[in-house]
Amino acid sequence: MAAAKTIEGNMLIAQSGGPTAVINQSLIGAVMEAKKHKEIKNIYGALHGIQGILDETLINLKKESKATLEAVANTPSSALGSVRRKPTPEDCAAIFKVLEKYDIRYFFYIGGNDSAETTHIINEEAKKAKYQLRCFHICKTIDNDLRQNDHTPGFGSAGKFVAQAFMGDNLDNVALGGVKINIIMGRHAGFLTAAAALARQDEEDGPHLIYLPERPFSMTQFIKDVKAVHDKLGRCVIAVSEGIADEKGTPIVTLGSAAKEVDSHGNVQLSGTGALGDILAQEIKDKTGISRVRADTFGYLQRSFAGCVSEVDAKEAFGVGATAVKEAISGNKDGSIAIKRKPGKKYAVEFKRVPLKSVAKETQHMPAKFINKDGNNVTQAFIDYAAPIVGKLPKIGKFKRVPVAKK
Amino acid sequence: MAAAKTIEGNMLIAQSGGPTAVINQSLIGAVMEAKKHKEIKNIYGALHGIQGILDETLINLKKESKATLEAVANTPSSALGSVRRKPTPEDCAAIFKVLEKYDIRYFFYIGGNDSAETTHIINEEAKKAKYQLRCFHICKTIDNDLRQNDHTPGFGSAGKFVAQAFMGDNLDNVALGGVKINIIMGRHAGFLTAAAALARQDEEDGPHLIYLPERPFSMTQFIKDVKAVHDKLGRCVIAVSEGIADEKGTPIVTLGSAAKEVDSHGNVQLSGTGALGDILAQEIKDKTGISRVRADTFGYLQRSFAGCVSEVDAKEAFGVGATAVKEAISGNKDGSIAIKRKPGKKYAVEFKRVPLKSVAKETQHMPAKFINKDGNNVTQAFIDYAAPIVGKLPKIGKFKRVPVAKK
Repeated sequence: MAAAKTIEGNMLIAQSGGPTAVINQSLIGAVMEAKKHKEIKNIYGALHGIQGILDETLINLKKESKATLEAVANTPSSALGSVRRKPTPEDCAAIFKVLEKYDIRYFFYIGGNDSAETTHIINEEAKKAKYQLRCFHICKTIDNDLRQNDHTPGFGSAGKFVAQAFMGDNLDNVALGGVKINIIMGRHAGFLTAAAALARQDEEDGPHLIYLPERPFSMTQFIKDVKAVHDKLGRCVIAVSEGIADEKGTPIVTLGSAAKEVDSHGNVQLSGTGALGDILAQEIKDKTGISRVRADTFGYLQRSFAGCVSEVDAKEAFGVGATAVKEAISGNKDGSIAIKRKPGKKYAVEFKRVPLKSVAKETQHMPAKFINKDGNNVTQAFIDYAAPIVGKLPKIGKFKRVPVAKK
Repeated sequence: MAAAKTIEGNMLIAQSGGPTAVINQSLIGAVMEAKKHKEIKNIYGALHGIQGILDETLINLKKESKATLEAVANTPSSALGSVRRKPTPEDCAAIFKVLEKYDIRYFFYIGGNDSAETTHIINEEAKKAKYQLRCFHICKTIDNDLRQNDHTPGFGSAGKFVAQAFMGDNLDNVALGGVKINIIMGRHAGFLTAAAALARQDEEDGPHLIYLPERPFSMTQFIKDVKAVHDKLGRCVIAVSEGIADEKGTPIVTLGSAAKEVDSHGNVQLSGTGALGDILAQEIKDKTGISRVRADTFGYLQRSFAGCVSEVDAKEAFGVGATAVKEAISGNKDGSIAIKRKPGKKYAVEFKRVPLKSVAKETQHMPAKFINKDGNNVTQAFIDYAAPIVGKLPKIGKFKRVPVAKK
């Protein structure tokens, strides 16, 4: 079905899934671009994703001042509210009734793979229902696990938070010794956990060990690894993904007493509990005899901490939002806007429209070249990949520590 | 015993207790001041507090470049390493042997109330042993619970971290709803937990409830409070001190299965575990039927996150370090440098020498005027007190949310 080059109508935009530090950049990028095009009459925002369409809780984004738009772009979390809901065919029928009532012909949905699936479902159902709609997904996720994307908006800023946390926490561990475990978000993809490696500036800096969901987790090997580092340095800093699972695929967190809660996309709750860190800390205490063992779970701070944003990430997030609108206006009917890295030594990206289906549902994992042979660290290839996305980190000062000759 | 106006000799400085974001400012403040005075010959740092004196692991701080000193000042955690150790009389005897060997006549110890106690013990033992020593404590603690001090270096930056975390987390909670509990450090003093209130910019902003160790914690009342906020707003953000205890003084964290670990000053481990958050989240789920309940424990990030420093805090931390050296040089024999707030509307402080004993061991708590009647929030008086110390916070942008008329 060939789409008309231009269609006139109103635009609706919404946000879905977990917030990020820059998801509002994408929202504002789309809104600011839309304001340039006469084909787009009104610009509406639905509160709490598709829930807001079903409930008809729409707001008029043309009533917001430029100053507000700019301030919202620089504010973490999802300014339109979010939701985790997969639409049924009945939901879609109800959604089209609302879209038609408000003459909405441009629809933009900002989110991760579940939100891409939602956009894909709406697009397919719109075709069946012969409802004329330009239907676009705008990528985001701190997990960095969307297919088709070199990386996703939100990852850079979350990675910066994780790196800055490890920079400080490594020094804290230098000061007081012992073993420190930090649990990082990222359900099935280890990118964010791996970003901890960017904290290292010297050979002995932590994280000394990194455990990713891409490799089966063995408690026996973990204890051995930790003991080896602690024997050598008198301390050990460890980055662990919340999603680590054993050889059979059983999440390690379920070995404890953590309650299992599942959302409508079938995801088990991994965040918002300190259980995994506590399980691992207890194992180390029990099996190694090391007395000072601490665990922190970075939790929601990773995705919404105010005041920790990668400039590159913010710029790119704005760019994918603006690009989605440009693509819709230029005659393309649907798609997801993906970030592609240009070849060459200098870091550069471009935003490309890719099929909705190619981003929906399934996720991508850390490629093998980013993980070391023992499965307990990352490679230099990962550092080279992630450093430009995470951007500038604080400068760390260290003494030379010139010893005073013993008397 | 009247001290000589000036004594010549070497200086030793060390850090103790939990690191902070600005404890190195105090260290460098003292070192830079010491470099100005000819009475002080060499400037040594002991690694890991008094342990480094006992082990004779001293470093020569005059061998560090100005650039390094400045970079270290701006780096979180304790650059000389830290320790939690209370000296016995035997330790003191051993310490004086080392001090004498290296002709150390100026001793500075940066830390909290336990470190003030250590400094006091060393000072008293030095008098008994007739070992001539200028002996000073330089205050720091994110807990903000040192007696004699209006506030302590480290609190402002940790408070800034907590406030920024709540600014983002409140928006995250707006986006996805439900109940969010954040556990904050502060053993018996609620100042840092209370700093979460600085995140609020509008009436409905979280934290909506704040639980401090200064008031007995009732699980029944807690559930009631949370339900009331959730019924009204459809969400609830809560700040909880790690140190909350019931009417009998039993820490709530010990109601779970968390292992109890005690340091040489007799403190139970409260940090480095997610147990308290998980206990409270489970109670809310069980007793209210609210399904989305999450808990994060901010943990060590509060005291050592790289790149989150209150400028006021950094400046004052440097000031107390420099003041300790000035006081020692000017003929005073011992003391702790405390921060006093000057009266008047405009925020201003001065650094005063106070007796070691008056800061040692015991801590101070949140005054009653800072806590609301129900014991589940702070007052405006607290906000007025803490805001200038925490300093500038990121700007948050919010939509006006002009509704589109329903059709």
